[in-house]
Amino acid sequence: VVTTGPSPQAAGDPTPVVAAVDVGGTRVKAALVDRELAAVVSLTLATPAALGEPGRLVEAMALVVEQLATRAGQEGAGVDVVGCGVVVPGLVDEERGVAVLSANLGWRDLDVAEPLARRLGLRTVLGHDVRAGLLAERAVGAAAGADHALFVPVGTGIAGALMLEGHVLHVDGWAGELGHVVVEPGGPVCGCGARGCLEAVASAAAVERDYAALAGVHLSAEGVASRVEAGEPAAAAVWGRAVEALARAVAMTVTLTGVDLVLVGGGLAQSGRTLLDPLTCQVDSALTFQRRPRIVRAALGDRAGCLGAACLGWGVVR
Amino acid sequence: VVTTGPSPQAAGDPTPVVAAVDVGGTRVKAALVDRELAAVVSLTLATPAALGEPGRLVEAMALVVEQLATRAGQEGAGVDVVGCGVVVPGLVDEERGVAVLSANLGWRDLDVAEPLARRLGLRTVLGHDVRAGLLAERAVGAAAGADHALFVPVGTGIAGALMLEGHVLHVDGWAGELGHVVVEPGGPVCGCGARGCLEAVASAAAVERDYAALAGVHLSAEGVASRVEAGEPAAAAVWGRAVEALARAVAMTVTLTGVDLVLVGGGLAQSGRTLLDPLTCQVDSALTFQRRPRIVRAALGDRAGCLGAACLGWGVVR
Repeated sequence: VVTTGPSPQAAGDPTPVVAAVDVGGTRVKAALVDRELAAVVSLTLATPAALGEPGRLVEAMALVVEQLATRAGQEGAGVDVVGCGVVVPGLVDEERGVAVLSANLGWRDLDVAEPLARRLGLRTVLGHDVRAGLLAERAVGAAAGADHALFVPVGTGIAGALMLEGHVLHVDGWAGELGHVVVEPGGPVCGCGARGCLEAVASAAAVERDYAALAGVHLSAEGVASRVEAGEPAAAAVWGRAVEALARAVAMTVTLTGVDLVLVGGGLAQSGRTLLDPLTCQVDSALTFQRRPRIVRAALGDRAGCLGAACLGWGVVR
Repeated sequence: VVTTGPSPQAAGDPTPVVAAVDVGGTRVKAALVDRELAAVVSLTLATPAALGEPGRLVEAMALVVEQLATRAGQEGAGVDVVGCGVVVPGLVDEERGVAVLSANLGWRDLDVAEPLARRLGLRTVLGHDVRAGLLAERAVGAAAGADHALFVPVGTGIAGALMLEGHVLHVDGWAGELGHVVVEPGGPVCGCGARGCLEAVASAAAVERDYAALAGVHLSAEGVASRVEAGEPAAAAVWGRAVEALARAVAMTVTLTGVDLVLVGGGLAQSGRTLLDPLTCQVDSALTFQRRPRIVRAALGDRAGCLGAACLGWGVVR
C-alpha cells in the first residue's frame, strides 16, 4: 500500500458504497465510493505482476476489494458495499465483461466481470479506463452538463474517449484511439507499427525523446514544459511540434464529429496554460467554418479512472 | 420536369405514401414513397433559383409535392399522402426544422419544417441530405443490418455521415464533415479556406483540376478513371493522390470511431473497383492493431437523399 485516502465518514448508519478499481500499467487505484462519487476510503497499490495468467486479475481485484473493506472497518467508516466496478486499459468488451487485449499489461481475453462477481458476491461491471474516466468527468468534473466531449489523457501514451449526444461511444470496444491517428505522415515510428501517430509525436515520451535528441539532455516532459516557460528555444521547438500535432488531431476530431468540448488530461496537461493556450490558438486557426470547441484541462487528474469505475458500479446497482 | 419515375402501382385501394424531396445544388429529386421505401411516383427538377429568399424554399417544396400528387393521379396510382420529408445540404438543425446554412444554395436560417407542414397540412420533417442518405442505405441499401457505418459521397465536394451503435450522429448538425479533415498539411487551398482538406485533394473537382494541370487536358473524373483503367501514367498519378487522401481520411475515421463499414458514394464511386480496390488496400496497410473496415460502394446512388427524406417522413408519421 502506497497511499491512503481520507476517511470523511464517522461511524453510524452504514453508507452504501461501490468498490471501484482502476488497473493501470504501474499502479492500481481503488476506492469505496458513495453515490455522490466521493471516495470514503481509497488505496493505491503497485500493479501486481503477471496479471495475464489465468485467474490472476480476478484474484488481485478481489483482494483489493477486501483490503478496502478492512480499511473502512479500521477507520470506523461504516460502509455497505453494494457493487463493484473495475476499469482496465486496452481493448475491453464491456457487454461480456472481458478484458480483450492489453499489450501493456500482457493479457488477452480475460473473463473478469462474471468470475469477480461470483468471487465477491456483488454485482460487478468491467469497463475501459478512459471511457469510464469521461463518465466521471461528466458526473463531477470538467464535462459536467455537457452533451459532447472529447477526453484526451496525454501521458506516456495518448488515449481518447468520445461522448456524443450524451453517450460515451464504445463501438464494440474500438472507439477513441486518438493516439493512433496519423498527424505527421511519414513521421516517427509508433509502438503500434505505423508512422506519425499522434502518440509518436505528442506523448510525454515523444516530448522527452525529441528534447533529448535536440538538446542532448534527458528531461521529463514536465521539465521540458518548465524550460518552455523559461523561453528556451530547444524546449519551445520540441513543445511546438507536440502542440501542433495535438491541434491537428483535435481539429480533425471536431471536424468529423462536431464535438464542442475537449478535456486534456494526463501528465502533459499538468503544465496547464503552457499546453492549453497554444493548443487552443492552433485549433482555432486550423478550423474555418466549424464551431470552435472549448479546450480545458480535465478536472479529476489520476482519479478519473477510479471514479469512472464507481460510475459504472453504481450503474449496475441502480 | 427532367425525368419521370416508374408508376408500378395499379389503381385500387390508395397506397399510404410520404412525399420525399431532396434539394441538391443543381437538381431537386422528389418522390411519393411507400412504407417499403419504394417510389410510387418520382420527379426530377432543376433546382429553382434564389431559394434563400424568404418563403421561396417552402413554396417550391409545396409545389413539388402538389406536382407529385397530380402525377400520381394522372398515372392512376391511388395514393394517400400521409407525411413529408425534405432533405437539404449544409448545416441543418433537424430538431427545430431549420436549414441553418448552405453556402452552395445561398441560404441562412430558413425555417422550413413548420411553415411547410402548415402549407401542406401534413406532418413534415427537415433533415440533412447525407445523414438521411445513410438512413436509407441502412434501411434498403448497402448498410442493411449494420450497427456502424461511414457514408462518404465523393462528388464535386465530399460530405460524410457517421452511424455508430445504430444511431446516425447529428451533434447539433455539425457531425460528419469528413471533406474538411486535413489529409495533406500545407496542401491545396480548399473552398472553406483551409489547406489540404480531403475535399481539396480527392473530390471529383480536385481530380479534374489535377489531371488538367498534369496532362494539359480537361477531362471529367469519370474520364480520368477510364484512363486509369487504360494504364495511362498521368491519370494513375492523379488518381493515386486522391485514393491516398481518401485512405488517410478513412483510416483516421476508423481509428477514432471504430467504424467497421464504409460506404463510398457519389460520382467517383461510379468507377467501382478502380476506386475501391486500391482504397481498400491502402486503408488496410495504414491500419495496424485496428479492426479492418469493409469498404463497399453505396447501393442507392443519387436516390439515397430522396429515400432518406422518405425515411424521415415515415419516422414522424409512425
